[in-house]
Amino acid sequence: MFKKRDNIYEIEEGNLLSPKFDNNGLIPVITMCSKTKDILMHGYMNMEALKKTIETKEAHYFSRSRKAIWHKGRTSGFFQKVTEIRIDDDQDSIWMSVDIGSGASCHVGYRSCFYRSIPMGPIENGRKIEMKFLEKEKKFDPEEVYKGQPNPTKI
Amino acid sequence: MFKKRDNIYEIEEGNLLSPKFDNNGLIPVITMCSKTKDILMHGYMNMEALKKTIETKEAHYFSRSRKAIWHKGRTSGFFQKVTEIRIDDDQDSIWMSVDIGSGASCHVGYRSCFYRSIPMGPIENGRKIEMKFLEKEKKFDPEEVYKGQPNPTKI
Repeated sequence: MFKKRDNIYEIEEGNLLSPKFDNNGLIPVITMCSKTKDILMHGYMNMEALKKTIETKEAHYFSRSRKAIWHKGRTSGFFQKVTEIRIDDDQDSIWMSVDIGSGASCHVGYRSCFYRSIPMGPIENGRKIEMKFLEKEKKFDPEEVYKGQPNPTKI
Repeated sequence: MFKKRDNIYEIEEGNLLSPKFDNNGLIPVITMCSKTKDILMHGYMNMEALKKTIETKEAHYFSRSRKAIWHKGRTSGFFQKVTEIRIDDDQDSIWMSVDIGSGASCHVGYRSCFYRSIPMGPIENGRKIEMKFLEKEKKFDPEEVYKGQPNPTKI
């Protein structure tokens, strides 16, 4: 299914898919909303998740916290219909566009996981950097949707 | 400068920046063209690269192949002016929007590193997956711009 990686020219300029999975067997995935072009999340796939995503056209990831294939939406109902998958020059990262309808993507309840922006400019010595919330309202109540499940965020 | 990660609620719902760097001291970065909203590249920052990016408003990464801070554009002239930086719910990945003017981003010569798309649907047994080129013409000649430098793509 995947071409063996044995030639840099073919990896960069060829048309055969030969993804590079890291030492943990994972490839990073950028997930974009196909309508707004906002980034919804940053995840990881293993070989099986990538295969399932290509075959079913629904986003499957590998959950690093649960160490298992993760069909996005199975718990929350917020499935991601994949409209396009791209891979980069050295084939070690994926950009995927998805349709989430009127749903959401972030386990905290926001539409996008990237709901905070970091200010730029000089950093004052000893002062913490204060971010700005770009999404003010949650799209769903995570306690209701994910009740009883462990929080994937780790310290 | 960064808040210590000691409380999951604060990491997810707080306004203080407390990024998580992985075991190699890196955080993945999604780089988007601020004009077209296309993804240009997927890179990594260490703490110093993130600090330099915030302070100078020009993208700095950590090159995993060269194991050094990488001020994007220093060799090619294709600097990235950062227009926004966001961080995700558990603060372990970054989404950065940049202005590259009429420049390019990919060391192979294309505007975006993601110049190929992966077809979806049933995967035929034993058959390799053929991708489609979405960018047909290179924006620059990499042999001229990067002459004498090793190719960052690894098998």
